[in-house]
Amino acid sequence: MGTEMVHPDRDAIELTQVLFALSDPGRLEIARQLRDGSLDVAACVPWDPSMPKATKSHRLKVLREAGVIRNEPNGRNRMLTLRRDDLDARFPGLLDAVLGRADT
Amino acid sequence: MGTEMVHPDRDAIELTQVLFALSDPGRLEIARQLRDGSLDVAACVPWDPSMPKATKSHRLKVLREAGVIRNEPNGRNRMLTLRRDDLDARFPGLLDAVLGRADT
Repeated sequence: MGTEMVHPDRDAIELTQVLFALSDPGRLEIARQLRDGSLDVAACVPWDPSMPKATKSHRLKVLREAGVIRNEPNGRNRMLTLRRDDLDARFPGLLDAVLGRADT
Repeated sequence: MGTEMVHPDRDAIELTQVLFALSDPGRLEIARQLRDGSLDVAACVPWDPSMPKATKSHRLKVLREAGVIRNEPNGRNRMLTLRRDDLDARFPGLLDAVLGRADT
């Protein structure tokens, strides 16, 4: 986790990849938790003995590679941030339509 | 193809399933073609010798089961319709955000 992670440039963010990243309930929940601001990984994806670490890591990887979140060093931890500016610029209205709802 | 196909009720349409259905370029293209009105299957998904019939059928099935399109008899053919009213009611702004763009 100490190495620099790759994030796609704004112009390289693809709509279909964003939709796919948000199409899984577990991944969508992570994005929803970041709607109001950045969170430490531990706060955003709480330790859950029933969830394998690989599952959690994979969810973050899919969201990051699609351009939905940034996963960056923050002291000894890592900080997750929703790429709202980039996504709003590329796909106006999409994040609000997807994350704005309390249900589902 | 002569049997009645199942379509989820409006209230049963799930956001994650809609996002998944639209996350494939081939399926997204079908939805985009229906943006301005219903089309015969043959007009919406033109015969393409490079595309197996099973691929075309599967795309329509995923879109229908997610609640994105209706696939209904129309004389000897079948008509595809975007479920705009249902999707706009369930997820305001989503279709416009996803289908409103010419690129991707």
